[in-house]
Amino acid sequence: MSASSPILLTPGPLTTAPATREAMLRDWGSWDGEFNRMTSSVCADLVRIAHGEEEYVCVPMQGSGTFSVEAALATLVPREGCVLVPSNGAYCVRIVRMLERMGIAYVTLPLGEDEPARASEIEAAFLRTPRITHVAQVHLETSAGLLNPLDEIAQVCARHGKRLIVDAMSSFGAAPIDLRGSGIDALVSASGKCLEGVPGMGFVIVRRALLETCARRSPSLALDLHDQWAYMEKTTQWRFTPPTHVVAALRRALDAFAAQGGQRARGERYARNCATLVEGMKALGFRPFLPAEVQSNVIVTFHAPRDPAWRFADFYTAVREAGYILYPGKLTEVETFRVGCIGAIDEADMRGAVAAIEGAVEQLGIEVR
Amino acid sequence: MSASSPILLTPGPLTTAPATREAMLRDWGSWDGEFNRMTSSVCADLVRIAHGEEEYVCVPMQGSGTFSVEAALATLVPREGCVLVPSNGAYCVRIVRMLERMGIAYVTLPLGEDEPARASEIEAAFLRTPRITHVAQVHLETSAGLLNPLDEIAQVCARHGKRLIVDAMSSFGAAPIDLRGSGIDALVSASGKCLEGVPGMGFVIVRRALLETCARRSPSLALDLHDQWAYMEKTTQWRFTPPTHVVAALRRALDAFAAQGGQRARGERYARNCATLVEGMKALGFRPFLPAEVQSNVIVTFHAPRDPAWRFADFYTAVREAGYILYPGKLTEVETFRVGCIGAIDEADMRGAVAAIEGAVEQLGIEVR
Repeated sequence: MSASSPILLTPGPLTTAPATREAMLRDWGSWDGEFNRMTSSVCADLVRIAHGEEEYVCVPMQGSGTFSVEAALATLVPREGCVLVPSNGAYCVRIVRMLERMGIAYVTLPLGEDEPARASEIEAAFLRTPRITHVAQVHLETSAGLLNPLDEIAQVCARHGKRLIVDAMSSFGAAPIDLRGSGIDALVSASGKCLEGVPGMGFVIVRRALLETCARRSPSLALDLHDQWAYMEKTTQWRFTPPTHVVAALRRALDAFAAQGGQRARGERYARNCATLVEGMKALGFRPFLPAEVQSNVIVTFHAPRDPAWRFADFYTAVREAGYILYPGKLTEVETFRVGCIGAIDEADMRGAVAAIEGAVEQLGIEVR
Repeated sequence: MSASSPILLTPGPLTTAPATREAMLRDWGSWDGEFNRMTSSVCADLVRIAHGEEEYVCVPMQGSGTFSVEAALATLVPREGCVLVPSNGAYCVRIVRMLERMGIAYVTLPLGEDEPARASEIEAAFLRTPRITHVAQVHLETSAGLLNPLDEIAQVCARHGKRLIVDAMSSFGAAPIDLRGSGIDALVSASGKCLEGVPGMGFVIVRRALLETCARRSPSLALDLHDQWAYMEKTTQWRFTPPTHVVAALRRALDAFAAQGGQRARGERYARNCATLVEGMKALGFRPFLPAEVQSNVIVTFHAPRDPAWRFADFYTAVREAGYILYPGKLTEVETFRVGCIGAIDEADMRGAVAAIEGAVEQLGIEVR
């Protein structure tokens, strides 16, 4: 990999396989059957990955993953609903900002950025605030890399009859999610995360019986999940111009996903990447921000060194020159930086990244401990 | 061009240049300076193409062009505004549907699908309905391929102090648009139309002084043009994950656009494509739907043959097998089909398309006249 095309250690866009990018070397007509069969096969695969064949449909949506999160909230939550948002990072805050704009009532459950959402606390919120109708749960809070315990959260929602919308942006494909009997109503993710496609489309895997009741509810036409789905059911086509090349790349990425062994193999590769990274970084003196028991395998937040000479921009540039792109921290109270473990990369790449980081701290004369 | 990769004679996605697609063969970090300088240079070029350097900024937006149209309406029209929509096709109707969802008042000016919007009628609507604050004008109605007279419409809006939002989806880059002293407040288009990029992002070229007054107005966070712009001004980055490969393809397409002679040369090539197509089709007995004086050079609607054996699906398939992808009609009252003249194609391709159409009607035994 040349210095002009570094390896991305970021939570998406990420480093994709050459074959995935090569799938973008042809043009597709958006009305053409060949393209629409491709869309349909992508959606079928996505539903299967989450074991939702029985009750769920996949609705693809143009734009970044955030557009799909907003589309799910806009379409699935009635105006008179009230959404509980367990909040332990920036993506939870983003959901709150969306609800505010739409004028939908919400209650937050404030948590530390290293503190997972717990079913017991969510249950207590239900009892405190009976008008809660929905829960919007971020599965993997990419702000710190924290994995929330989705199964126990889904169970408590089901027990109390609350609808559950899951932002699985950076967990889908990497962490196991089984929709069967789960109590999950909708699961949102995007092309350019752990499925290792390129960015440009999101998707919502949603309970069909629920979606059918949501016609004309969204205050946005573009982000109306029901309209998108109904049109596609009727015509096999996307409602508005689809990102054809992005869809083709995702089709290719899903072929690779299956060939490599599916979600389980993907999760195991990321776990090896993550372990290699953390071990190497600890040896250099860096400390992960999260306790190991809530650390996902997708992205790791490290404390910035306390050395007054530390400046993230310089560190970033030095590591970039060695061929690796890091990610800044996104925490509000602690100075940190992040290193992604996802994409078409393996343990050798992670060792390379650690070596590049070691070189950078030496070059910049930074005391890590 | 092999049969599996036909030439697209559609209004976008369209056939792009190989170099444009090859620009997608590398991955980009969305936080990285190299990528963000690319976004910034794309935006600067887009403003220049419309001669807006003095007063306008370009805000790129993830998703299809329709998402950018909705973002412009959601962000620029106050809730108490009233929008006049001169309506001569499906894209005008789409704007009305967006306004309905957002709960914004509107007045339509109903026109025939072959009838351009005229300044005099728009002025009469202003006098009839003084509460009109904005006009949402589709420049080139792709439903039939009709070019509305933007200059005279902009002048009457300026004279009456009405704000003007132009959907220039399929005209931008092909038809001359000069924002200087135009009275136009916002111009919307997308990557995958006459700029010959791939689909996946739109953009709004908007008067900076107006945009500055629109903070927190959009009922959608994802489609908030002000928030997108303000964040980009502050950080140089996109607010949410950008479609990095689509941006890189647009950068390459804009390089080709400039190298080929800019808007004027692009318009001239499309005019030659269109003339070649119309001449060839007329020789086969096909009649264009629109009178020549309102026919754009971008897409041509032809009447379907009256022969009872005519079925568009069969015709489409036969022409596709010869290597060309046509587009169905989108008119409500007349049976038609469409042939696009845009993309990285020239007169030889148009002659090839006419020959393929000739072969198809012969093969299907259809009487054209």
